[in-house]
Amino acid sequence: MTKLSHTFKNRSGILAATIVTMTAMAAGPAWAGVASETVYILNTFSFLVHGFLVMFMAAGFAMLESGLVRTKNTATICLKNIALYSIAGIMFYLIGYSLMYVDVPKGGFMGTFNFFYNPSGDELALLSAGDKATPEMAEKVIKSGYSVPSDWFFQMVFVATAASIVSGTVAERIKFWPFMIFVVVLSGFIYPVQASWVWGGGWLNGMGFTDFAGSTLVHSTGGWAALTGAIILGARKGKYGPDGRVRALPGANIPLATLGTFILWFGWFGFNGGSQLALGSAADATAMSIVYVNTNLAAAAGVVAAMLLAQLIYKKVDVSLALNGAIGGLVAITAGPDLQNHAHALVVGGVGGALVIFAVPLVDKLRIDDVVGAISAHLVAGIWGTLCVGIFGSGTIATQAIGILAIGTFVIVTSTVVWLALKATIGIRVNEEDEALGLDKAECGMEAYPEFGSGSQTL
Amino acid sequence: MTKLSHTFKNRSGILAATIVTMTAMAAGPAWAGVASETVYILNTFSFLVHGFLVMFMAAGFAMLESGLVRTKNTATICLKNIALYSIAGIMFYLIGYSLMYVDVPKGGFMGTFNFFYNPSGDELALLSAGDKATPEMAEKVIKSGYSVPSDWFFQMVFVATAASIVSGTVAERIKFWPFMIFVVVLSGFIYPVQASWVWGGGWLNGMGFTDFAGSTLVHSTGGWAALTGAIILGARKGKYGPDGRVRALPGANIPLATLGTFILWFGWFGFNGGSQLALGSAADATAMSIVYVNTNLAAAAGVVAAMLLAQLIYKKVDVSLALNGAIGGLVAITAGPDLQNHAHALVVGGVGGALVIFAVPLVDKLRIDDVVGAISAHLVAGIWGTLCVGIFGSGTIATQAIGILAIGTFVIVTSTVVWLALKATIGIRVNEEDEALGLDKAECGMEAYPEFGSGSQTL
Amino acid sequence: MTKLSHTFKNRSGILAATIVTMTAMAAGPAWAGVASETVYILNTFSFLVHGFLVMFMAAGFAMLESGLVRTKNTATICLKNIALYSIAGIMFYLIGYSLMYVDVPKGGFMGTFNFFYNPSGDELALLSAGDKATPEMAEKVIKSGYSVPSDWFFQMVFVATAASIVSGTVAERIKFWPFMIFVVVLSGFIYPVQASWVWGGGWLNGMGFTDFAGSTLVHSTGGWAALTGAIILGARKGKYGPDGRVRALPGANIPLATLGTFILWFGWFGFNGGSQLALGSAADATAMSIVYVNTNLAAAAGVVAAMLLAQLIYKKVDVSLALNGAIGGLVAITAGPDLQNHAHALVVGGVGGALVIFAVPLVDKLRIDDVVGAISAHLVAGIWGTLCVGIFGSGTIATQAIGILAIGTFVIVTSTVVWLALKATIGIRVNEEDEALGLDKAECGMEAYPEFGSGSQTL
Repeated sequence: MTKLSHTFKNRSGILAATIVTMTAMAAGPAWAGVASETVYILNTFSFLVHGFLVMFMAAGFAMLESGLVRTKNTATICLKNIALYSIAGIMFYLIGYSLMYVDVPKGGFMGTFNFFYNPSGDELALLSAGDKATPEMAEKVIKSGYSVPSDWFFQMVFVATAASIVSGTVAERIKFWPFMIFVVVLSGFIYPVQASWVWGGGWLNGMGFTDFAGSTLVHSTGGWAALTGAIILGARKGKYGPDGRVRALPGANIPLATLGTFILWFGWFGFNGGSQLALGSAADATAMSIVYVNTNLAAAAGVVAAMLLAQLIYKKVDVSLALNGAIGGLVAITAGPDLQNHAHALVVGGVGGALVIFAVPLVDKLRIDDVVGAISAHLVAGIWGTLCVGIFGSGTIATQAIGILAIGTFVIVTSTVVWLALKATIGIRVNEEDEALGLDKAECGMEAYPEFGSGSQTL
Repeated sequence: MTKLSHTFKNRSGILAATIVTMTAMAAGPAWAGVASETVYILNTFSFLVHGFLVMFMAAGFAMLESGLVRTKNTATICLKNIALYSIAGIMFYLIGYSLMYVDVPKGGFMGTFNFFYNPSGDELALLSAGDKATPEMAEKVIKSGYSVPSDWFFQMVFVATAASIVSGTVAERIKFWPFMIFVVVLSGFIYPVQASWVWGGGWLNGMGFTDFAGSTLVHSTGGWAALTGAIILGARKGKYGPDGRVRALPGANIPLATLGTFILWFGWFGFNGGSQLALGSAADATAMSIVYVNTNLAAAAGVVAAMLLAQLIYKKVDVSLALNGAIGGLVAITAGPDLQNHAHALVVGGVGGALVIFAVPLVDKLRIDDVVGAISAHLVAGIWGTLCVGIFGSGTIATQAIGILAIGTFVIVTSTVVWLALKATIGIRVNEEDEALGLDKAECGMEAYPEFGSGSQTL
Repeated sequence: MTKLSHTFKNRSGILAATIVTMTAMAAGPAWAGVASETVYILNTFSFLVHGFLVMFMAAGFAMLESGLVRTKNTATICLKNIALYSIAGIMFYLIGYSLMYVDVPKGGFMGTFNFFYNPSGDELALLSAGDKATPEMAEKVIKSGYSVPSDWFFQMVFVATAASIVSGTVAERIKFWPFMIFVVVLSGFIYPVQASWVWGGGWLNGMGFTDFAGSTLVHSTGGWAALTGAIILGARKGKYGPDGRVRALPGANIPLATLGTFILWFGWFGFNGGSQLALGSAADATAMSIVYVNTNLAAAAGVVAAMLLAQLIYKKVDVSLALNGAIGGLVAITAGPDLQNHAHALVVGGVGGALVIFAVPLVDKLRIDDVVGAISAHLVAGIWGTLCVGIFGSGTIATQAIGILAIGTFVIVTSTVVWLALKATIGIRVNEEDEALGLDKAECGMEAYPEFGSGSQTL
């Protein structure tokens, strides 16, 4: 096993700063501060707990998408979701983590091409020593502030989220293996490179661009990749009539879509709460608590805003709009969930949810066929949330806009290249018969609901 | 942002007492106690972790109810569940938390009308200071024992639970918006006022009434509100024949109901475990562990009791009775999960589960139409569990009975007033055609399972 | 309440060793170590958090099995899953924990027949003292390193896992109550006795056999019991044609099976991560983080290996094979998730997933009817994973093989005796009419999906 000789950086050194603060505090004579080893344990455990919450979002996306596609494509979407989570994790291990975090130059554009991530040499030495570990060995580990693999785990689950977003948009007509190749490139290259600009300490971080948990880095990145994919793939057969008419192709299982949204909401406490990156001081614990509260209020406001607008516009409250309102609110708060005034979280999330209501028909008007509404919920609300850091938070609108544009451009260009290369070689779209038959029979070789007569199946 | 100048109280000052204990312990020279800042972090993290578990119970209720209604009302019940969770959280932010916890007079009947809950000024000062934070700033925060927003988050998720209980009972015939208005009043006024009497340190707490995690305060409160709603709404068309015959209207999706019950059980470790309210001492950690064990045993006993009774009475084991047995056991143990003899937990939970088996047909005999059995599982088992504190725990049966009656009377009166006011103005029940058609088409504008032919749909 | 006077041992005294290490470290002057009471709290909280994750695996098994059986047996499989989780917990309370952990002689074959597990007397004394607790009282509790009930909770959820494995294999033709009696014996006797040999500090532990979180102790044990059950029960009517033809009886609800797999994956972080058994030192936190990373990589490799093989062999990627690939990878890594080189986790998990692909048709060739593929995923991958400790980890292949054989023999013999005794007395298989009708109508008295026309129902 190669010992990596580099400094691990974590999301722009935020954690390092926090630890300095904690040490400074601990120097105070007036109360008993947190011991450095306890700090290490708490930071590490926070990564693990919040990491498993974010991991579960993979189940949320799987259920949301299973509920919003038609029965004939349901088994395939299940397969894609477990496959992309697996591939994203392996790619992040092989190369992604290094590209994103290892030795990113100050003001730089990516990390290094170290293959195979591994725990730090100091950690392995401590564990191998077992009972013979010396205080010096422990000290070396503890001064990093958290266990390196715990951070890897937490960062890894974010990559899968970006990939999950794409899968929903391009569902029902994309070929299985080409999609998986796209996921390989997205999780191994596109995502880590742009993320290195901010969380890796690269050039956008140097400019002051701020994205707490990834409204832009995760959600808009997934959204741009989904958008380019949807345009290059084209719409599902029959979605848009010749006269501009939009045909509804309703999702087959609304309770599953609802469950998926609740799982995403649940997992988002890990997504945003864990992105505090530290739990070793009263300040960090307090900041994390505020993040939880804002995350919940923003999502709630997204739901309420979406419901009220749906009632006003359509005279009925469509549950899928309420679900997307929740996601819009969650995506919007993600860039800046550390707002000190909770009322601002209501505004950020409420507008995020409302934007989804307006974006969904707009995307359809552009004849971009987004099966689950992911472009509206992740890209549009992600842009809004990132700008909010300039409005309500510590950033400036101009810097935030530069970050949005730079990352948007990079993801649009790179993902377009990949989609077009795949299209020109192995092809990305199933043929018309397979699309009509459904991907489950054509590609997956099994049906999702073999006993439920699907006589009324649309198209 | 207004700095609130008040003392935060938490569920009758239990936490404060705990901290005193911990400090006393820490004074002992013989072992290294927990540093006060570590205590703060651990207490805060316990609120967050247990809070996210309870939050996920919203998904549990959504799945349980989705599984137990008929397909034609499934999308609507999904919508109601995500909507009520959102509204409850916003109402608790706007006013509920203050009514429940802020400056409740000793022996009093409610807190104050401070609008908009916010973190404490000391917390905001510490966070704003960043690297320049002084030991004095941290000390001020740490001495409160836990982060205020973490407590808010934990308390907030309980409000939503009470509202979820109502939604299941009144399903399949209530209008959407009137129900939401009821949720506004329940979560913003009825729930916080009665809870202030006990957890806020009000008059019932002064008398010695004890309800660890809310058999009465949460579950019976939800149950009473559901009961009044069911009576005022009336039964679903066709549920009760003219000759006293009860017609089964079976739930459409049993696996989802099962999933919902498992999610509730999972979340209940947060509900009861987190209600220890502290994790900063060996005593608290031990007490919390005992709560976990008792919670699990009571639920298990509820299942087994329900299954055995079902076999004896009906000669078949109906899975929905087993599911309700689990919930009955869980609700029953909630008032006193700190029992030191685990065998008592088996009794509390087993009787809780058994009561559900007897209560379900009794409620039907009274022609009260409770779609999911929530009155039996939450109200009846909640009363039993609250009395158990007098039987097995530290309370007296008389005091427990006074609490049950007082809170029952308050919730019955207030919720009846709200239901009747809604009925007299905008109406609470859909018309007969909409009920026959199903709420999904009538109110929600979409079907839950559009491709699954529902030829055999009952009624 | 009887005060138990014995020493609690925990999985071969691993935890005790860890605490020694920690104390040694804490003696170092160069950094602030973790206070002993903080160690106690962190170890306890790790058991609780990881325990609730493992508990949720019960929901995962329920959904996986609900998705893979036919509609006519779905309500029954739901019932079985909640019933077995309940019964396993009660049996472990009544007798299992004592047989497994209490006073197992060095090199011995089982613990003691103490009925009714209870918290330690020291813990009860501390809690009962409340504010009057003395430092001595706390010290007595703290020196055990963790709260006894938290350990009980964590160990208990493992028993249910073993029972869950059996339920999937023998589904669709076993009688309800006989199966429950089998669960009583499995969770109260078979599982704890063999587990005492290793985790209780018995003879296999003395030989050096290692099984970190239970590839053999939990998964193969469940797998052997399932195998004997499947053989003795016989195949479902129509599964195997007279000419050796295997008839596919496809699962009715693939999204639920997918959800179940994701829940299992999520819960597995508790299963493996929590089996570090301690979180009170930097070394433990680091080791736990490595376990999380390896667990995820192994599962991901299992999925990818299964998908690639399925594509090569069958030219289509069957989603159920990908799901079983994930489980195969997870089961395989469970015996040794503490590998210091993550690349080894990819190999362990990838082979685990691949083995499932080969084992499933092999089991069918032997005309052993395993409804959900549990024998392949839990038994075969469990054997492989246990051997891997000899290949990549600290054990030897010979010792690992002895453990596999010894436990396999014990479980085969004891479970065969129980199955045969049940068969000879009350019978274990439903009659042909009930099997054709489906267990839901025959035994459970309700249908899982009453409104979904099941015209195309197989058999």
